[in-house]
Amino acid sequence: MRALALLCCLAAPALAQPATDPGAGGTLSLLSPDGRTTVRVGVDRGVLRYAVSRDGRALVLPSRLGFAFRGAAPLDSGLRLVDTTRAAVDTTWTQPWGEVARVRDHHRALRVRVAESAGARRTFAVEFRAFDDGVGFRYELPAQPNLRDFAIQDERTEFALADDARAWWIPANRPVPDRYEMLYASSPVSMLDTVRTPLALEFQGGPIVVLHEADLSDYAAMDLAYVGRNVTDRTLRPALAPWADGVKVRGRTPFATPWRTIQIADRAEQLAPSVLGLNLNPPSRIADAGWIRPMKYDGIWWGMHVGLHTWPQGPRHGATTERAKQYVDFAAANGLGGTLVEGWNVGWDGDWIGTYGRDFSFTRAYPDYDLRAVAAYARERGVSLIVHNETAMGIANYERQLEEAFRLYRSLGVTAIKSGYVNDRTREGHAHTGQYMVRHFRRVIETAARYGITVNAHEPVMDTGERRTWPNMLSREGARGQEYNAGGGGNPPEHETILFFTRLLAGPLDYTPGIFDLAIRRPTGTPRAPHESRVRTTLAKQLALYVVLWSPVQMAADVIESYEGEPAFRFVRDVAVDWDTTRVLSGRIGDHVAVARRAKGRDEWFLGAITDEEGRTLEVPLDFLPAGRRWVAETYADAPDAHFLTNPRAIAIASRAVASTDRLRLVLAPGGGQAIRFRPE
Amino acid sequence: MRALALLCCLAAPALAQPATDPGAGGTLSLLSPDGRTTVRVGVDRGVLRYAVSRDGRALVLPSRLGFAFRGAAPLDSGLRLVDTTRAAVDTTWTQPWGEVARVRDHHRALRVRVAESAGARRTFAVEFRAFDDGVGFRYELPAQPNLRDFAIQDERTEFALADDARAWWIPANRPVPDRYEMLYASSPVSMLDTVRTPLALEFQGGPIVVLHEADLSDYAAMDLAYVGRNVTDRTLRPALAPWADGVKVRGRTPFATPWRTIQIADRAEQLAPSVLGLNLNPPSRIADAGWIRPMKYDGIWWGMHVGLHTWPQGPRHGATTERAKQYVDFAAANGLGGTLVEGWNVGWDGDWIGTYGRDFSFTRAYPDYDLRAVAAYARERGVSLIVHNETAMGIANYERQLEEAFRLYRSLGVTAIKSGYVNDRTREGHAHTGQYMVRHFRRVIETAARYGITVNAHEPVMDTGERRTWPNMLSREGARGQEYNAGGGGNPPEHETILFFTRLLAGPLDYTPGIFDLAIRRPTGTPRAPHESRVRTTLAKQLALYVVLWSPVQMAADVIESYEGEPAFRFVRDVAVDWDTTRVLSGRIGDHVAVARRAKGRDEWFLGAITDEEGRTLEVPLDFLPAGRRWVAETYADAPDAHFLTNPRAIAIASRAVASTDRLRLVLAPGGGQAIRFRPE
Repeated sequence: MRALALLCCLAAPALAQPATDPGAGGTLSLLSPDGRTTVRVGVDRGVLRYAVSRDGRALVLPSRLGFAFRGAAPLDSGLRLVDTTRAAVDTTWTQPWGEVARVRDHHRALRVRVAESAGARRTFAVEFRAFDDGVGFRYELPAQPNLRDFAIQDERTEFALADDARAWWIPANRPVPDRYEMLYASSPVSMLDTVRTPLALEFQGGPIVVLHEADLSDYAAMDLAYVGRNVTDRTLRPALAPWADGVKVRGRTPFATPWRTIQIADRAEQLAPSVLGLNLNPPSRIADAGWIRPMKYDGIWWGMHVGLHTWPQGPRHGATTERAKQYVDFAAANGLGGTLVEGWNVGWDGDWIGTYGRDFSFTRAYPDYDLRAVAAYARERGVSLIVHNETAMGIANYERQLEEAFRLYRSLGVTAIKSGYVNDRTREGHAHTGQYMVRHFRRVIETAARYGITVNAHEPVMDTGERRTWPNMLSREGARGQEYNAGGGGNPPEHETILFFTRLLAGPLDYTPGIFDLAIRRPTGTPRAPHESRVRTTLAKQLALYVVLWSPVQMAADVIESYEGEPAFRFVRDVAVDWDTTRVLSGRIGDHVAVARRAKGRDEWFLGAITDEEGRTLEVPLDFLPAGRRWVAETYADAPDAHFLTNPRAIAIASRAVASTDRLRLVLAPGGGQAIRFRPE
Repeated sequence: MRALALLCCLAAPALAQPATDPGAGGTLSLLSPDGRTTVRVGVDRGVLRYAVSRDGRALVLPSRLGFAFRGAAPLDSGLRLVDTTRAAVDTTWTQPWGEVARVRDHHRALRVRVAESAGARRTFAVEFRAFDDGVGFRYELPAQPNLRDFAIQDERTEFALADDARAWWIPANRPVPDRYEMLYASSPVSMLDTVRTPLALEFQGGPIVVLHEADLSDYAAMDLAYVGRNVTDRTLRPALAPWADGVKVRGRTPFATPWRTIQIADRAEQLAPSVLGLNLNPPSRIADAGWIRPMKYDGIWWGMHVGLHTWPQGPRHGATTERAKQYVDFAAANGLGGTLVEGWNVGWDGDWIGTYGRDFSFTRAYPDYDLRAVAAYARERGVSLIVHNETAMGIANYERQLEEAFRLYRSLGVTAIKSGYVNDRTREGHAHTGQYMVRHFRRVIETAARYGITVNAHEPVMDTGERRTWPNMLSREGARGQEYNAGGGGNPPEHETILFFTRLLAGPLDYTPGIFDLAIRRPTGTPRAPHESRVRTTLAKQLALYVVLWSPVQMAADVIESYEGEPAFRFVRDVAVDWDTTRVLSGRIGDHVAVARRAKGRDEWFLGAITDEEGRTLEVPLDFLPAGRRWVAETYADAPDAHFLTNPRAIAIASRAVASTDRLRLVLAPGGGQAIRFRPE
């Protein structure tokens, strides 16, 4: 229920909150509800700037706002303040699924309208919202005679950081666009080139600031380029992937940009749950989301990555009717809600990447795979068949078939797809992060919603909170996932401890945990993975990832044979995928994280703790558990001699009674973890 | 004394060590003396490749060798093996000064000569040397009719790393060449673009490999570019700064390249002392190095960085005769060997950077500075005047005056210069790392040697061990030094803990420690530093840096007024600058390091320990001290409430008796350190 929103329209001099920045003339101030964060906005010699501080410490120094256009003068100077609008909002809304069930939207807003003092007298507005957990702002370009159709050449927004903060980043400046599937680097901001968001920035002595965006629906995704001109200038600016002609964004007024978000937390533990971006997305467009089901799933997938099966048809074809039914049976027997089948459809033969998936059909199956029969078989057993749609960035081919394919899936009772965009660009040269692909993603999400289908996108556009508006947009990749452990050079043990504080702040991640055959040793005679590789975690850490790296769809990613006779698989069966509450108990970016989450609608808590290549012991209080009751803690811990390289499968499974007043001592092996289920005694 | 060198010339099939690589035909093996490191070299289908392994684990996968030329065909294919030469060397030589006094050169060598099988039938050789601490190799291009004058377009050497090791790097791909003055990033190798050397690489589960070069005398300095073509290809290749026409290196046969070095250590603690590169440089060309004096020095320098003084003449001119004499007096009173004076000479007025130091004279002083009088004053007090030569990359101007200037200095009894190269490039566009600047540096070093002058170069060519051949090349910068704490955004506390394991492996660093006025709070009325900034260490850490960041010239870098009444200054007076022995007691790149060094010719040991932004406690055994005697440990420790941000000057100075059987508990504050002098009781 939306609470009272207090709106007031005031001329600049008569502000409810006084201008507090001495010597800056007409500077306007906006305070977060807790009074700790201040946004200052003002026009100085024709330039509109904003600044952000926390507890009196500058975080973002005065930073320019505006645009450069193709075919029109830049709109970032010669400006005057026209009027301002203020609002205060305190409301709570409910998610159909998520990291937390209820989200409080508590903010104060300041909308500043400016106009050119001369010439075309174009006008635009910037709305700022100050929350306790950060700041968002976006541009609004109203309809006006001198600004109708426009082509943004550059967004001139600046983030002039007040400190040479330690950044945790993946690069965005490589010749081959990389679909976010990179390992993280860390360095002072002044060493950055061009990087992706979410960008986590540890200020010296705190706080942590995360730059990202929200409500990306018809714009290019925001990378950030370091444009500092000297050693004390730590300015970042949006770097937007262009259209073929170099224009970054095309639009027509009235138009609003995505929100630029500045999440702020005193400590890493306070970064999650991250709801700033969700609060800046429009409410759900799906009136009744009851059909949308978070679930665990198995699937014909890992077998291809390790060389057991193939996507194309042939002697080792993975997606056969028989194998699909085996996976459905396994899912049904183990309470997994879905079964994914990849490589089921025509088009995988030959160079499907080089031809941009020219031959992909999204309706016609290979001869050895009976889509209709498998769908029916799954439906009868209460399992969702998850249909795979690999596009190879052949967007035109996919969009041409979209309605027909989704109509077919719906007719078969299929309510979930996993989409894929494996290629560096589209044939026309569009990057994954450009406006073209952003528009495509929205089209797929909205089309899927009309057909009652959920989407799990791999090689996607980064999450900017669109799950609030379209809760059928369940999960996505957008990170270097588990499959890199099968022959892609591997993910170092610290990788997931960084993902939690970077990628996961954007939204859920389909990382596909649950590999049990960690050494990837295949029976004699079966093909080897293309490169020697192994999973660089312990088994207990694989379990912990279900809790740490949240997603409303979580895969039991290994081939089902790997789960036979494995007592540790019980945790995969038990763990929830939809959460009431999330609490980070301990964490440091790149080192470790421990998180507790309460299962939605169940009187159960789960705890996941992971570490990097260093073994470590964490003492965690159990005060998240309701007091006054006894609980059973079912623990899946690294055995004393476990090690991610030499002894990854050594796991100790035990049960013990605990209470909320207890403290648990979690001993994590190098590259290890621990997973715990808490249920009432 | 050079020990017996066993040389044998053999045809490839009759190798003393058998070819052990199955299936690779004529692969040659070279083992390090301890048998742990293996270099394999062979020609396969006309391509010459090498590989390196340690204890049977691959470190460098088979990697191509060769060149691309301008105006001639590439020389990296169609090759056949002509002959091989082997040698075994075990000798020990003595340094006139250094991190250690005696250096053992214990290696086995394999020289492989190859030739084109057809066409021009050009020939070249690669000599490999395998030491216990790593591998070096270099190309030799013999004189031959079809390869006389040459222009190297690209050096096609590869370093195909077997693991996605964690790299500690500074970028080399910025639009503005940066003179090595960058903060470090760390990331997996596969995330690199182009980086500087020394490049430290932590392999998962060990060892640590450091890529660098040795004996750079007439070539471009080696940056490294990541050229991996897929996620499992971690290949680096030399990136050489070009001449104006794009050619990287010009030469004439016979010619030898610098050595490419692959230092290998099981643990970070074993990386220093680093002598691999020294062993690959020619012996000293200075017959009697007795005149070369390691020393501590003060100077008119920090005052300019914090805004108290100016380099150019004017009301706040730093280099006045009177102030110079004060600094000489301070040096004499405190046992410092030298006094540096910057801004003494004509040419600092106006835009000296933009004009590439066009007006710099290296002989004429400003009117308020009497060079002759100051030099005499210093000489009389046993202090070396260190004359500053800032070039602003105006190389032609400097070289024109070089002989005359050095002749003048010598006539005044001046035996030391500090040179500077503050500019992004020369006016002609030459980078600091190109062959043009390498040649210039050598010319300055050799000219200085003729005049009995030592060189301390800032913004230099990176150290590649030339101090062995030219021990008058005392020290240099080539890193982001202390001055960045005065207004350059500051160095984060981890910075020096990374420098020790990266930059310092190349050679000594003139970091200029010893800032006592850590908050840089100036008396009322004096100009402020241009940006709010402070030194981000505790006082005890400033002292520890004298031991950790070794240099044969170490500055007491603060203005001398800051040392008045400071008991901690006693350590600066006491600490040695020349060492018999170096032992790293504990260390981890980016976290902390503790090192003990024995003063040369004195029965004293010094210990320096530093940490990053985390406080930590180190337990170090004192077994480096000679047994059976009592020692006094004079400790300069962080006080219990010390903190680099809030309470940096809290220091506890104490003395206690210790023995070699004791263990010391070093409690380091966040951003802190500890310095200890051990003297016989």
